[in-house]
Amino acid sequence: MKDRYVVIMAGGRGERFWPESRLRRPKQLLPIAGEEAMLTQTLNRLPGLVPLENTLVLTNREQIDSVREVCPSLPAENIIAEPEGRDTAAAVGLATLMVKRRSADASLAMLPADHVIANHERFRAVLEAAFLAAEQDPVLVTIGIVPTEPATGYGYIQKGEPMGDLNGRSLFAVRRFVEKPDLETARKYLDSGDFFWNGGMFVWQVSTIERAFEEHAPELRKAFVELEADMIEGGDFETVLSRHFPKLPRISVDFAIMEKARNVVTVSADFDWDDVGAWPAAARHMNPMGEGNVSRGRALVENGSGNIIVSDPDHLVALVGCDNLVVVHTDDATLVCPKGESQRIKDLVKRLGRNPVDRELL
Amino acid sequence: MKDRYVVIMAGGRGERFWPESRLRRPKQLLPIAGEEAMLTQTLNRLPGLVPLENTLVLTNREQIDSVREVCPSLPAENIIAEPEGRDTAAAVGLATLMVKRRSADASLAMLPADHVIANHERFRAVLEAAFLAAEQDPVLVTIGIVPTEPATGYGYIQKGEPMGDLNGRSLFAVRRFVEKPDLETARKYLDSGDFFWNGGMFVWQVSTIERAFEEHAPELRKAFVELEADMIEGGDFETVLSRHFPKLPRISVDFAIMEKARNVVTVSADFDWDDVGAWPAAARHMNPMGEGNVSRGRALVENGSGNIIVSDPDHLVALVGCDNLVVVHTDDATLVCPKGESQRIKDLVKRLGRNPVDRELL
Repeated sequence: MKDRYVVIMAGGRGERFWPESRLRRPKQLLPIAGEEAMLTQTLNRLPGLVPLENTLVLTNREQIDSVREVCPSLPAENIIAEPEGRDTAAAVGLATLMVKRRSADASLAMLPADHVIANHERFRAVLEAAFLAAEQDPVLVTIGIVPTEPATGYGYIQKGEPMGDLNGRSLFAVRRFVEKPDLETARKYLDSGDFFWNGGMFVWQVSTIERAFEEHAPELRKAFVELEADMIEGGDFETVLSRHFPKLPRISVDFAIMEKARNVVTVSADFDWDDVGAWPAAARHMNPMGEGNVSRGRALVENGSGNIIVSDPDHLVALVGCDNLVVVHTDDATLVCPKGESQRIKDLVKRLGRNPVDRELL
Repeated sequence: MKDRYVVIMAGGRGERFWPESRLRRPKQLLPIAGEEAMLTQTLNRLPGLVPLENTLVLTNREQIDSVREVCPSLPAENIIAEPEGRDTAAAVGLATLMVKRRSADASLAMLPADHVIANHERFRAVLEAAFLAAEQDPVLVTIGIVPTEPATGYGYIQKGEPMGDLNGRSLFAVRRFVEKPDLETARKYLDSGDFFWNGGMFVWQVSTIERAFEEHAPELRKAFVELEADMIEGGDFETVLSRHFPKLPRISVDFAIMEKARNVVTVSADFDWDDVGAWPAAARHMNPMGEGNVSRGRALVENGSGNIIVSDPDHLVALVGCDNLVVVHTDDATLVCPKGESQRIKDLVKRLGRNPVDRELL
């Protein structure tokens, strides 16, 4: 059997969860849903799938200290900081290289650090099926989540020909990836039974993903070949990375590889999954207060419905006559935003970044 | 010339300014408008009108320590705590008694502690006119503010016959007091030129107000005669007050006396005045941020207008896509409320009072 690795992508900035999420302690390092940090929850569902020493976490220089705190059981050299964020294709390239240096013949799963997944047993069974699929053929395996509602916040995967079963899970060729649809389209997708949610989880062999880069993203492939050569020549890892990484093109692995490749296979996943992309999604994991209000921490609503309140046990957030607001209290900043506008929190974070005085709040 | 006294009514709870206003440090002890506590500002406009030793502050037992802190220059015996709030008629009765014990022949002005008044010189000139009016005839003098807009948040005074001038200010008989009008009625009042705002400021002789109680509120008068008799018999002030005060009927001086009396005179006041009754009124004294947003403390609005934000310099309150909200941050509580609902903050405060855990936040 091939060596198996898991690489957790934990470099997100979690801007849509400001002010709870900060540059140095973003969404994946917070208990946005559940009692523990999202990254801890992600690590906790891996035992039995890969050993701890084969688990890598990809983060960035701002967050690496916080990641180390959150993952005390992980070997220090398994936590790798990108010199700067260059989107997911660069992250996949770096992850591939890190795994390859340990075991050139390995297969690896790339998993986001900040998703909510119930049913850990099922999660491991699906990943087992994905590893088996990736190991028996030179294919790019993606996890397809069986949709339960016409969600407009996720990308979708349209399935093609069935490719049999592995470990009790069905495999399909992938016909195409589609971007976040509008509600009407999402309803059609759901009714057709032909679509999965794109969970952003991938499994492949080192050699398979290298070939895919060569074919679909030759510029990136070339950059990583040079990076690898510099490392082999004995360059200091940090120095080599700092020299090459900032020059990589910014592109997502979906655009660069997945949407172009013909050898993509999807494994049907039957676990409960939620990518908790913004406060309204996180609200599903908070305490109901009646009238559709939910909260974490000390909260009170007088005459209002549909509100999301985040505070701590020592600070009361009280709403009077308000509906459908997101209110987030932290020690040094409070956010108030209508639920429907919560995607715009990113605009606010950008604005804070432009003002030197406000930058301390990022 | 008669001895003159000023009694400042500083016993309000300021519930509409929760969470900044608390039982022990309510509105009048906070810099709701301006740099200093409202009570301090009230005291600072008296020099030249009455000496400090003739200035009394009426408060309650919860607030007396905070009042002493805010008024360090005031003789300790000039700060008097009501055992419990029994509305303004009882406060006037107590104030009258306190002044009478110092000087039975005196005149006194009753002034609220929490109003914003610009033009201190004009304020003193108007009060001088009111004292003169009250001293030359046995009349109840009330200050009538010349209205500048069709405000629906104030009571109005309809003027009757002109009664000449004193100290350059016009006096009028009072035809009637009217409650807060709707907007259409307020417009009519403003256009007619016949109405003043009722500023809740009164001047009279001890003997005049005692006679008014006798005539219009005999029950209250009887209670105060008994209270006075007990004191003269040498009862401890606190003990006597605690025995009598809680039995007094709860009624405002407007209902009990002013609306019934025929000997009411109003002095036309030409100073800028604002009773700062709730957050939208306080907003007029905050820092403009553009788009009709105003703030005190550290605040930011991304795409929104008409908001009122109160925080401190160390805590950012950020609004995204919100209009016409009041957001007040304090160390242990945050309030979010639409501007138009800010009268309902009192409901919230009542609700907090019913829950033992929340009572600490009052």
